[in-house]
Amino acid sequence: MNLNGNLIIGLKEEAGSEKEVSAKNPSTNDTLSPGYKGATAKQLEHACDLANNAFYKYKNTSFEDRAKFLDTIAEEIEAVKETLLKITPEETGLPEARITGETGRTVGQLRMFAEFIRNSKHTDATIDEALPDRQPLPRPDLRLRNVAIGPVAVFGASNFPLAFSVAGGDTASALAAGCPVIVKAHSSHPRTSEIIGRCIQNAVKKNNLPDGTFSLLFGSGNIVGQGLVKNKYIKAVGFTGSRNGGLQIVKTAQSRNEPIPVYAEMSSINPVFVFNSVLENPDKFIEGFLVSLQMGAGQFCTNPGLIITKNSKNYENFKFKLAEKIKEQNSQTMLSNVIAKAYEEGVSKFKSKNNITLVGEGKKNGNANQCIPHLFETSANEFKKDQDLSDEIFGSTSLIIKCENDQDFNEIAKKIEGQLTISFHSNNVEEVSEEFVSLIEDRAGRIIYNQFPTGVEVCHAMVHGGPFPATSDTRSTSVGSKAIFRFLRPVSYQNIPKELLPKELV
Amino acid sequence: MNLNGNLIIGLKEEAGSEKEVSAKNPSTNDTLSPGYKGATAKQLEHACDLANNAFYKYKNTSFEDRAKFLDTIAEEIEAVKETLLKITPEETGLPEARITGETGRTVGQLRMFAEFIRNSKHTDATIDEALPDRQPLPRPDLRLRNVAIGPVAVFGASNFPLAFSVAGGDTASALAAGCPVIVKAHSSHPRTSEIIGRCIQNAVKKNNLPDGTFSLLFGSGNIVGQGLVKNKYIKAVGFTGSRNGGLQIVKTAQSRNEPIPVYAEMSSINPVFVFNSVLENPDKFIEGFLVSLQMGAGQFCTNPGLIITKNSKNYENFKFKLAEKIKEQNSQTMLSNVIAKAYEEGVSKFKSKNNITLVGEGKKNGNANQCIPHLFETSANEFKKDQDLSDEIFGSTSLIIKCENDQDFNEIAKKIEGQLTISFHSNNVEEVSEEFVSLIEDRAGRIIYNQFPTGVEVCHAMVHGGPFPATSDTRSTSVGSKAIFRFLRPVSYQNIPKELLPKELV
Repeated sequence: MNLNGNLIIGLKEEAGSEKEVSAKNPSTNDTLSPGYKGATAKQLEHACDLANNAFYKYKNTSFEDRAKFLDTIAEEIEAVKETLLKITPEETGLPEARITGETGRTVGQLRMFAEFIRNSKHTDATIDEALPDRQPLPRPDLRLRNVAIGPVAVFGASNFPLAFSVAGGDTASALAAGCPVIVKAHSSHPRTSEIIGRCIQNAVKKNNLPDGTFSLLFGSGNIVGQGLVKNKYIKAVGFTGSRNGGLQIVKTAQSRNEPIPVYAEMSSINPVFVFNSVLENPDKFIEGFLVSLQMGAGQFCTNPGLIITKNSKNYENFKFKLAEKIKEQNSQTMLSNVIAKAYEEGVSKFKSKNNITLVGEGKKNGNANQCIPHLFETSANEFKKDQDLSDEIFGSTSLIIKCENDQDFNEIAKKIEGQLTISFHSNNVEEVSEEFVSLIEDRAGRIIYNQFPTGVEVCHAMVHGGPFPATSDTRSTSVGSKAIFRFLRPVSYQNIPKELLPKELV
Repeated sequence: MNLNGNLIIGLKEEAGSEKEVSAKNPSTNDTLSPGYKGATAKQLEHACDLANNAFYKYKNTSFEDRAKFLDTIAEEIEAVKETLLKITPEETGLPEARITGETGRTVGQLRMFAEFIRNSKHTDATIDEALPDRQPLPRPDLRLRNVAIGPVAVFGASNFPLAFSVAGGDTASALAAGCPVIVKAHSSHPRTSEIIGRCIQNAVKKNNLPDGTFSLLFGSGNIVGQGLVKNKYIKAVGFTGSRNGGLQIVKTAQSRNEPIPVYAEMSSINPVFVFNSVLENPDKFIEGFLVSLQMGAGQFCTNPGLIITKNSKNYENFKFKLAEKIKEQNSQTMLSNVIAKAYEEGVSKFKSKNNITLVGEGKKNGNANQCIPHLFETSANEFKKDQDLSDEIFGSTSLIIKCENDQDFNEIAKKIEGQLTISFHSNNVEEVSEEFVSLIEDRAGRIIYNQFPTGVEVCHAMVHGGPFPATSDTRSTSVGSKAIFRFLRPVSYQNIPKELLPKELV
């Protein structure tokens, strides 16, 4: 495949003419070709017009036809696996094994949504038949189903170049729902984005779907990002990224006349509560924790950034062992220079604070943009007082909060902001009160017992979401089959004759 | 029951000390006692603190206990039926028969939600069992259910003093979901609000539910309305009312740090498309239309404010008959002086416009604040050009759009804003294209064939919602059992031991 740096607008491709971005190899900081010129406001508008024109035909495709389309995208992606293995690691610093895994996850998601709509599981078909003889008034025939919400804007994420980007969960669920999609490619992996964008465009063509079912735009947050969120034809937005980025999109959406749903998955430090029983023999916990902390150089939304535990006779031993083990950990290349700089700044800030202490740090092992894992410690009182300590440091850094008693422990549980996940570890269920479980359930999309937050299973019972600031809309998940409901709305059909009823309601 | 004009704050009652409002008899403009002093900012904060404190206990009540609570509220309301028949018509101008019907609807809704949660239909319990031997990685046990979103603020509506007010659909669905509720009473029926508020407070006491499960505040939009929407403990808002009122709440909610869902049901002119076949013998249509137009003096969210039809040899006869029939219609007393004035202004504006003509108007029949029904006519071209003609005139006024051809007809369907309902009438299904049905489905929460939009059935397949500006959140309904999902959020439980799992997931 020749990469040419073009935008994909419906069935065509064309060069942008705004400021060019290029990928960089994060392990060398070398610039990678081709350059990607940004979409102009006019090109963006054209993509939105096409999406709006495509909407009527696309939303009315049969479930089977849409499922075939998703399956075709999966096949197209599998056909470029080798290209991805060459191109993606170079611009993301991620190892080949990760790209193989993430490719599998991406095609798996597409096929899961295909299966979901084949089985009509998204329709919520609900029928209340007429009761013509009811007193005092007859009841009309009422039938409800979900319909597609309209064209959707998706923002590619930097940390998952495949599974949360051009053909990631947002795109897959929106296309499955019957919504045309316009993706803003993330500027740190434009080449991977182009490859995947072409896969989707091929699948649109092979399935004879309308022009505008899919577009892929490169360009700046100002022109492309804000332009998409403001466009009147866009009816929902999917985003995975930083808190600042997410809040900017929320704010832009709020400036519209018509409010639209914004599904921004933003920041989470994924607290891990460790009960006393674990500290008695902490080796297994420590091993699992460090694997989770180091996964993807800590650049997972579910990276465990906080350990909350209680002081006990075993505490110092626990901390000592953690310190020993983290020193053995190697650094890893981060996704980009921007992310690596932000990580270094976050770590430096923690190091300069006098209310936390460094427990240990790993070894540097590579050239540019390394994430050296760090572990810090503070007290419950300091954590409660200092809002800075709740900030996410995107990378393999975690902070231990040493509580002096049960009250501290529960107060921390009450104080923490909304999270994607909260985990708790215990070898004795009786240590854990129902109140504690109820508390953490109010603050997270997923609660986890004796396992670690990284590893977000793609299934029906997954919630990758949670209260603000983990996301901007706590009613939703961005992973798993229920992600499709973000892009649907219910419609009720009253007394509609069979000839005109949607098939799933007859 | 002695009305005393007090606020209800949790288990207590106390007088407000902000500006007093009193009900007025709309048919005489006489002031009715008692006066209701507004809640202070401090009282409001106290109610929110109590709701937040109540949340943990209340959300964890069993489904059966919450169902009993809802049933008790229904019983308490039935016990004050006679009082309502005396008090409510006086301050709303609504006839006794309407109050009887609306009381039945209100207790029916409460019992429907009780039944719904008794049957665990709100939980969406979803289980993906562990696959410990899966390759390359085992799958953890994952279980999902819905939990209550948090304390909810509900704004009483002027046009349904019972079914969309203190114990209306918003309150019933939020309480059923496990959310404490704080209601801002509508200032035009404070006495009815007090009566119903006491019913709920009694039910809280009888069921030993926590202090703060329910509060009722009187007062201004500035202090109480905005104060509730801004309060950090409030996690969702339910509102039924005007577009201006709804947008103000949306805007206030957007000023919060934490975004929360706002379910504002605002304005809708409920277009009625009339196909040619109906005009051949229009008597039945005209009869049904006028009943719908006159229902509740046109003060229904689903009042039919627009008739779209095509010019044909039968058109003049259709219009003539409509004109004759509307002249026979009597005026009715509106809910308040404010609403009656706005209605008169809307009608005067239409009368003064030179792009529409008056088809006919009804007879004045009463003293103050009368809604005299009106029917106007315009062309498709004028409607497309003049945004004023899309504005809601809250009351029994409707505008006929005379289209010259099929293209006009479909263009109007494309041009109209989001609606609660769109109806179409035809005696020959072959006149109606699938494209037309698909078009109106994109612009409404409910589409209706050969029936009229007023009469919103409380059932499972109802959608009382729709695209903006009908509502601020097109993913929801405010009537019917699915209204409960507005106040729930999903949580996933990973590897949680049976002892700590919620009952519905074991």
